Formats: sequence, C-alpha cells, structure tokens
Amino acid sequence: MSAETAAASAPYEAPPGLAGVSVARTKVSDVLGRQGFYHYRGYNAVDIARRGRVEDAWHLMLHGELPTPEQRDQFAAQTAAWRELPDGVAGLLPAIARLSPPGSLASLRTALSLAAQALGCRPWGDQTREETVEQAARLSAIMPVLAAALFRLASGLEPVQPRPDLGYAANYLYMITGEEPDERSRYAIERYLMLTIDHGFNNSTFTARVIASSGTDLGGVATGALAALSGPLHGGAPARVFDMLDAIGTPENAEPWLRHQIESGHVLMGFGHRIYKTIDPRSQLLHEVARELHSDRVALSEVVEKTAVELLAELKPGRDLYANVEFYAGVVLEAAGLPREMFTPSFACSRIIGWMANVLEQIADNRIFRPLAHYDGPAAPRELPGYWQPGQP
Amino acid sequence: MSAETAAASAPYEAPPGLAGVSVARTKVSDVLGRQGFYHYRGYNAVDIARRGRVEDAWHLMLHGELPTPEQRDQFAAQTAAWRELPDGVAGLLPAIARLSPPGSLASLRTALSLAAQALGCRPWGDQTREETVEQAARLSAIMPVLAAALFRLASGLEPVQPRPDLGYAANYLYMITGEEPDERSRYAIERYLMLTIDHGFNNSTFTARVIASSGTDLGGVATGALAALSGPLHGGAPARVFDMLDAIGTPENAEPWLRHQIESGHVLMGFGHRIYKTIDPRSQLLHEVARELHSDRVALSEVVEKTAVELLAELKPGRDLYANVEFYAGVVLEAAGLPREMFTPSFACSRIIGWMANVLEQIADNRIFRPLAHYDGPAAPRELPGYWQPGQP
Repeated sequence: MSAETAAASAPYEAPPGLAGVSVARTKVSDVLGRQGFYHYRGYNAVDIARRGRVEDAWHLMLHGELPTPEQRDQFAAQTAAWRELPDGVAGLLPAIARLSPPGSLASLRTALSLAAQALGCRPWGDQTREETVEQAARLSAIMPVLAAALFRLASGLEPVQPRPDLGYAANYLYMITGEEPDERSRYAIERYLMLTIDHGFNNSTFTARVIASSGTDLGGVATGALAALSGPLHGGAPARVFDMLDAIGTPENAEPWLRHQIESGHVLMGFGHRIYKTIDPRSQLLHEVARELHSDRVALSEVVEKTAVELLAELKPGRDLYANVEFYAGVVLEAAGLPREMFTPSFACSRIIGWMANVLEQIADNRIFRPLAHYDGPAAPRELPGYWQPGQP
Repeated sequence: MSAETAAASAPYEAPPGLAGVSVARTKVSDVLGRQGFYHYRGYNAVDIARRGRVEDAWHLMLHGELPTPEQRDQFAAQTAAWRELPDGVAGLLPAIARLSPPGSLASLRTALSLAAQALGCRPWGDQTREETVEQAARLSAIMPVLAAALFRLASGLEPVQPRPDLGYAANYLYMITGEEPDERSRYAIERYLMLTIDHGFNNSTFTARVIASSGTDLGGVATGALAALSGPLHGGAPARVFDMLDAIGTPENAEPWLRHQIESGHVLMGFGHRIYKTIDPRSQLLHEVARELHSDRVALSEVVEKTAVELLAELKPGRDLYANVEFYAGVVLEAAGLPREMFTPSFACSRIIGWMANVLEQIADNRIFRPLAHYDGPAAPRELPGYWQPGQP
C-alpha cells in the first residue's frame, strides 16, 4: 500500500513493535537482513570499519561523504577540540557518578542532559542548520568524555583529561585507563566503534527520530535515545554475553550448558536478530579481530558460538539464529583494555554518531510522529461508578 | 490488513509521522477525533476533570479504576509522602537551574534523570511489577517538586518545600508561589492538570512506549518522554499562544492581525490538531473555566478564537481548524497564578501520569519497537571514493 492511499483510508494496524513497517525514508544507512549486509550512506560499513578511523565514518555520517585527507585532518582537529566540557558540567560529575554504579547509563544520561544545557541547545527550529549540525558533532564528541569521567569517578579515581593529540579511539581508551593505549588495543576498539555507529531504525535511533520530530533540542534527543539504548533488549547485552561465558567456564561445558538453557526456554544472549536471518556481518569482522588476539576467552567463545548455532538449528529449527554483534563485541572490548562495565557506554559513544545523522535528516523534512492506538478496553463512555464521590471539584 | 498478514508480507510503508497508523492496542485511553470525545479507561475525561481531583484521575490511570473514598485518602497520603526528594538530588538543583532559564524543560530533564538515579530505578525486567508501579508513582510525584524548585532557583528564589497536607493541585501552586492558593486558583489549575493527563499516542506518550520497549528503567522512559514534550510542535505551544495574544493586543486588532498571519502562510498557535477535526473537548472545559475568571485576557481570547475559526474556515476551507487545548490553557494557567514560563512544565507534570500508565501497559506484554526504513539513497554498495586514503587502520 502506498503512503498516500494509507493516509486517506482506515487506520492500518501495525504488528507489535512495528515489525516489518517502514516508518520513514532515509539516505543514512540500510540493513539487508537476508544478505547479511549493511551500509553507511551506500558504502559497505564493514569495508569502512576494516580500513578507516572513527573520524572517517563520523564525517561520512555527519556531512554525507567520506573526507578527503585534508578534510579528515580538519575534522579530527575540530572534534578533538570539542572534547572540552562546557562550563558548569565537570563540577557536578562527582555527585552524579555517586548515585549509580560504574558504567551506568543512567548517570551518563543525566550528565549528557546537563552538558546539552551547558552547550545551550535550543529547539532546532529556533537555530540555524549550521548551529544544529555543530551541536550534533559536539554532543557526539562529549559523550566519550562524560562516559570515561563518570566511570573513573564511580570507581574512586580522578577523571583523566582528554588529549587532543590522540585520535578518537586512542583518546577514548586513554581517558578510561589513564594510559596511552598500545596499537593492538587501539586497533580493536576502533573496529568495534566503527561497526556500531548506525544500523537502520534500531530502537534508539527510532527513538531519536521520534523525539526530534517534536521540534525539541538535540540534547533532549540524545538523552532520550541514550535511555532507549540502556535497555537490556537493545544495548545491554554485551556484558550479559560475558556473564554467560563465565557461567559456561570451559569448552567441555558448552554443549550441556547451552542445551539446558535452550531446553528450559531461556534466551541465549548474543544470538539472533530482528533483521538478520544469516550471519551478522558485524560479528564476522569482530570475530576476525578477536581471533588475532589469541586469548583463552576467544577460544571459549568460538566453541560456544559453534555449539550454540548448531543447537539452535536443532532445537529451534527455521528460526535462523546466528551470533549477533554482541557476541564477539565483549571479547574484543575486553582485549582492548575495557572493563566490562564500559561495554554498553562504548556502544553509546559510537551510536550517538548514527543518531545525529538520522536526526539531521529527520528535521530537514519533518513531520511529527503521532501514531494512533487501537483501543480495546471497556466500551466508552462508561458510566461513572456509584462509589466514586468526587466531592467538591 | 491484519497484524498477522502484515508481518508476513512485504514491508508496509507508513505515511510520514505514522499518521493513521495504529501502533499498539491499549486499554488506557482513546481519542475519537471526529466526535470531539476522549476518555480515560473508558470514562469521559471531561466528566472526570470537571468533578474530581488530580488524585482521582491519577489513581484511575495507575491502578485501572477510580478510587473509593478510602482508596483516595490512602492514595493521596501516599503520593503526598512521595513528594520528598530522594537523597542526593536537592543539593544539585541550584547548579542545574543555573544553566537554563526559568521554566526550562532541559533543566527539568536533567533533574528528573538525576532523581531517577537516586530512586534506584533499574531495568523493569530486573524488578518486580510492584516495584515498577511504585516507581511510576514516585516519578510522577517528584516531577512537580523538581519543576517548582528549578523555577524558583532559576528566578533567584529559594525552593519552597512541599506540604503533605495539601492536595496535588494546591501543593503545586504553593511550591511555585510560596503562598497557599485561593480556591479559585486551585480550581482552575486542577481542571487543566486533569484534562491533560493522557491523550492517545501523542508524541511524548509514544516516545515513552518506544523507550520502555527496550527494557530500560522508568527514569529513562520519563526523561526521554519529557524531551519529546519540550518540542514546540508538541508541548511548547501554550506560551506561544500568549505571545500571539500579546502581539494582537486589542480585540479590534484581531481580525487584521490574524488575516495577515494566515495569508502570509504562518501557522496560528493554538489552532488545529492532528486528531480532532471538530472542537477540542479540552478547550471547551478550559473555556468555561476561563469565562468564570472575567479578565481582559479572557475577553481578548474569546474574540481571537471566534475570529480565527471564521478566518481559517474562509482561507483554509476543508481543513477543520478549531481551537485546541493550548488556546485557553494559558489563560487558565495565568489566572491560577502561574508565570508563563511554567505553562509547559505544568503540562509535563500532568502528562507523566499518562506516560506511566501507558508504559505499565506496554511492558506487561512487550515487544521492542524496531521498525524498518525505506532506503532511497545512492545504490549500495557504492565503490569507495579514490580520494579516500584511510591509511593504516
């Protein structure tokens, strides 16, 4: 059914979760689930992630094209300068960090909202396009600074100031650990960050578009999208994959443990995807990166992946369940020197780049998201109950 | 098309903004746009708003039924006790308030996120249903306390502690002005608050459901929904209606001013609604309340409404543009003693009750919102541009 005829006819009742419903047109990215392929603005995302730097993909998403070498240098210098927190933020971070455990997305949400206030974000209709694009970049540049500072504060450590001479990925690790990362760690986290920038209308990206469509400021958009990302059904799984690997413990235990889980009706963390019905291409590159790291954890992961895919095919035939991005993400992030608590905040740092690209597109040709509901409660109007005595109004 | 066949067939391309698309089933509320009727759980919302107290409607939304007199007394006492801010919040409010002007929803967003941290909100799947319902009520009880405190702090005044002996509406005015309100003011604001608790899948309520579907905590849900509400296309209009009344100034100026606006292609604030194609029933009751207040502003508003509806019918025939809830809201809120900056924060205070009812329903039978997009950019995969020199990865 075309958009035009749909709008004119009776309400269309969408499947739960808007599964299979296309809610907007986009030039930002696409996911071809049956082909195991996704792209950023038409370019194979895995190719870009394999060869580039975060700044390359960020420029592509924000400005619509991959940068020339000169543009990349400029963009890297500009975004490095934007790592500095605006006035009024740093002093509050200790008190915010104190209220939640290390790596909490709730404290990151509060701090991001505060930083957006300090940046002076206003409703996008009240700003020039240039101001809004700059804010999109600044919020993205600030997210890792906040995430790292809050993690250190919640862990009883002093925050480490960002270093503008380091690239995005190296500086991110530096702010968390306080040490300049080795090349292997930088390489690993850069792959992860680039692979997770955007991925169609996932829950947090859709949230960003819905909020932006109300005309609000980009800080509110990012704060709301971050709240969505913190849900365990969306961004919260990498750490839970690790909990599973811990529980399995040894390669020999993989088959009985996994079989018991599946037969008891539990969901396996790190397997299956709403869109992919074949191998997740993000998982493939992360597996490659992991394999170069040669740890016991990698060896165990490989056995668990192989066993789980076989068992899922046997016990849940026709469901096409494969390892998703989260399965090898944890292994890679740990090898890069990240504590487990920072897995989901790292995802937030890369994904905000995708949110902002989507939002800049949404507001360029906006219509507020205002769907319908199908009421199926008691027939209305109901008579007011006799026991209700509202008294004087 | 039924939900089942839609999920199995090719993607359905929804109209922009999901207009005319029903995205979930609900027993919480409904809006019948052609009939000019809306209800809360089947009860005519205007009837309840005309006769009751905020606590009645709140109980109905949260617990599914209007309270008996005993239940209302209990609920009022419990929710009054929950006005107390959790530890770790009050001390940060001055610094948060300092970053934005009085009445800012951005500072309210930061403070609400902080309060949710302090309440210990966790992903709803990790809590009992009882814990989640209690958090829903506590967040709703805290919102007006935060809104009032931030307003006073940003205005250079000390916050006023809530008074548990006052009802919701009276206490709200008391915390803002520092004086116990007269009966006329309490009556007026109570009508406004009760009328605006819920209204189908408006943008912020839909945002709340989308975020909640990820499994995140209720604090993140409320923070994201508040961000949506702050958009001028959603919750930001009552103050803008006032700006329009100021610009018109006198009844004689209404006709030429409005005609010029409409003919120049400007949108008139306070007129038209995505769903209502007749008189907005909220506007009708607010008009009644306003009329009892006998101010010059009311007299001007009535002339402006009448003139605008006539001119819109003449200049935009077939569009069915009438005064919406926001048109008389400002007049009523001002007469109740609220400064203009507090119009939208007041809307946030009532609407969070609706958000929470919707979210509790969503998570009782959840499926994550994860729609599709229709990619219409350059054909993928594009060849990587020759100028791009990613260098060492």
